[in-house]
Amino acid sequence: MPIVSHKGKAMPESPIRKLVPFAEKAVKEGKHIYHLNIGQPDIKTPIEAMNAVRDHKLDILAYSHSAGFESFRKKLAGYYAKHDITISSDDILITTGGSEALIFTMGSITDPGDEIIVPEPFYANYYSFSTQSTVKVVPVISKLETGFALPPIPDFEKLITPKTKAILICNPGNPTGYLYSKEEIKQLSKLAIKYDLFLISDEVYREFVYDSSEHYSILQERDLEDHAIVVDSVSKRYSMCGARIGCLVSKNKSVIETAMKFAQARLSPPTLAQIASEAALEAPDSYYKETVEKYKLRRDTLVSGLREIPGVKVALPKGAFYCIAELPVEDADHFAEWLLNKFDLNKQTVMLAPASGFYSSPNEGKNQVRIAYVLNRRDLKKSIEILRQGLEKYNSQ
Amino acid sequence: MPIVSHKGKAMPESPIRKLVPFAEKAVKEGKHIYHLNIGQPDIKTPIEAMNAVRDHKLDILAYSHSAGFESFRKKLAGYYAKHDITISSDDILITTGGSEALIFTMGSITDPGDEIIVPEPFYANYYSFSTQSTVKVVPVISKLETGFALPPIPDFEKLITPKTKAILICNPGNPTGYLYSKEEIKQLSKLAIKYDLFLISDEVYREFVYDSSEHYSILQERDLEDHAIVVDSVSKRYSMCGARIGCLVSKNKSVIETAMKFAQARLSPPTLAQIASEAALEAPDSYYKETVEKYKLRRDTLVSGLREIPGVKVALPKGAFYCIAELPVEDADHFAEWLLNKFDLNKQTVMLAPASGFYSSPNEGKNQVRIAYVLNRRDLKKSIEILRQGLEKYNSQ
Repeated sequence: MPIVSHKGKAMPESPIRKLVPFAEKAVKEGKHIYHLNIGQPDIKTPIEAMNAVRDHKLDILAYSHSAGFESFRKKLAGYYAKHDITISSDDILITTGGSEALIFTMGSITDPGDEIIVPEPFYANYYSFSTQSTVKVVPVISKLETGFALPPIPDFEKLITPKTKAILICNPGNPTGYLYSKEEIKQLSKLAIKYDLFLISDEVYREFVYDSSEHYSILQERDLEDHAIVVDSVSKRYSMCGARIGCLVSKNKSVIETAMKFAQARLSPPTLAQIASEAALEAPDSYYKETVEKYKLRRDTLVSGLREIPGVKVALPKGAFYCIAELPVEDADHFAEWLLNKFDLNKQTVMLAPASGFYSSPNEGKNQVRIAYVLNRRDLKKSIEILRQGLEKYNSQ
Repeated sequence: MPIVSHKGKAMPESPIRKLVPFAEKAVKEGKHIYHLNIGQPDIKTPIEAMNAVRDHKLDILAYSHSAGFESFRKKLAGYYAKHDITISSDDILITTGGSEALIFTMGSITDPGDEIIVPEPFYANYYSFSTQSTVKVVPVISKLETGFALPPIPDFEKLITPKTKAILICNPGNPTGYLYSKEEIKQLSKLAIKYDLFLISDEVYREFVYDSSEHYSILQERDLEDHAIVVDSVSKRYSMCGARIGCLVSKNKSVIETAMKFAQARLSPPTLAQIASEAALEAPDSYYKETVEKYKLRRDTLVSGLREIPGVKVALPKGAFYCIAELPVEDADHFAEWLLNKFDLNKQTVMLAPASGFYSSPNEGKNQVRIAYVLNRRDLKKSIEILRQGLEKYNSQ
């Protein structure tokens, strides 16, 4: 029998998937599960997007331009202009989700064996896409104690080799919820320019910032034009995860031209989803405001609830809709499994994402979990109570 | 300025794209262009698919399962059963177009530097996906004189090295229109088993076969179960190129498990397009029959018309909706450019796809073009007349 590739074997299993069989078993046993483990928002997609699809007048579902509909790219440039980012529609390539924007970026700037430095903990699929591109992720550790702030610049410099092609950040961060300050972005910019590296910023959570903080994009750094590559997506912004529409944005012409060759090979991004995504841009400002307000209240509910549980540590997330919590357990993977297998509170339990899946360094984050606050506050409160009693029981055994 | 990768530089430009600037100029000069260069069908998408999208009841456009909706996969298994292919829904992975099925396949079975043998001329993007996966395409030449039939098996055997991981065919073929016989598939199966290689068959044109020929799938070869990987798509079958829905089908469990890890990394295929694609399976048999009948008439119109042009050679395509024609010119790239730049017949001209883009061997197919018969017969007849007069004028200069 012919066998799969080394690359295929090296591809990681999703850290969330590992628990799915236990969750399925729990459901079969009649337990209700509160999902704190996934970033699928419960917020409604803008009605403008959904109606655009319902009202479509197409006879033939044809290819779009490989870079995406021009009308959509022009409106997107308008969206960025509102956020003090000056780009033209030619600087944008519409992709099949932020995922494809990352794959195109890695394909365009790295060869097998090249290295990308990523603050850790990081979005688990960065590791998958790197493996797919036979690129090495070099982690630089950020700490819960500092709220997962940018690690000191010398920590990055120590890791730079001739193979280093880029630094990749997620801002605001999944899984940390950390929002990089303008000052931190400026430090990273200087570093990228000094060592002639690309700076890739995953800004899919750019709208989700709290406490009157402001998001500062790498695209606002004028000196960084040749170095900056932004990955974005409609998935979270408009609760349109299933659209699979994202984009790659760069003022570096050779990056866009190269990524365009990858885009042409796969022909086009999905047409119906582009129609929905273009229409979503017509959502009123109130849509964003109400969504962010809702998440802020959820965050406050979650964080204050978690902090009342003995032994739990959590940094206040300033953005996105995740936090990393340290639990009074040795092995969060085991505890998360136990919650599904052995525990319930009135036939209810919670599903967590063990944070080990967000670290590539061995033994980091063993006692941490990622919690997504994509549930309403009542359910969040119930989840926290289940977690509190679960921890008590787990640690009394 | 940081620079793009060797891989990025090596990515080929689409052979069709090269002519786009000339086509845009021609349109600006008031010329009408008949597009013989692209495989975007003019056939209507099944109304069942379009209505399913219009009637959607979604509030939230959420992720689907990474392998695609189970209901869709089950119905697809039913579709294959009708074609004498026995598979279960677990053998199917829904992908974002046939393109992604090819990318997942290459990722799952090859490492950098591995080789895949492909009969030439071949679909140009096989070369792009190979470059993206840093895999080497090893061409084995098929000839117009034999109608692009399967090259002799010893021609393949000569090319097999320890790096060879698979043989990739397109059946029926883009760009050749050749339909492999059952006997040829059996020869390839024996070869794959003998050398323990994967046999990948791109069957996106499986419904488009003419003259009461029958399509014989590699999935019908029982002995080949561990070796066979089929790439399929709704794009051409239902005139849904913009859906970006395809699938990877294999009875080899480790292939599916490995491809699933790539699928999980990119989260899910597009939701709306899956709704449309699942509904397209409800199209009545008459939809397929009428579509194929239409293409058969177009093929006959095209081939008989081309054969009346002095010096033009063409093999009768038995499937798909393309043919490779040899023209009485030295350099078909130059001629195709000239047709757009310097020629018109009553302000009308044609756009061809020079066949050189479908060969990886240098200097092969220099006097050939690929013609897609996705136009109605009246337009095809006009196109042939333009081509006839164009050749006459080009060769009299």
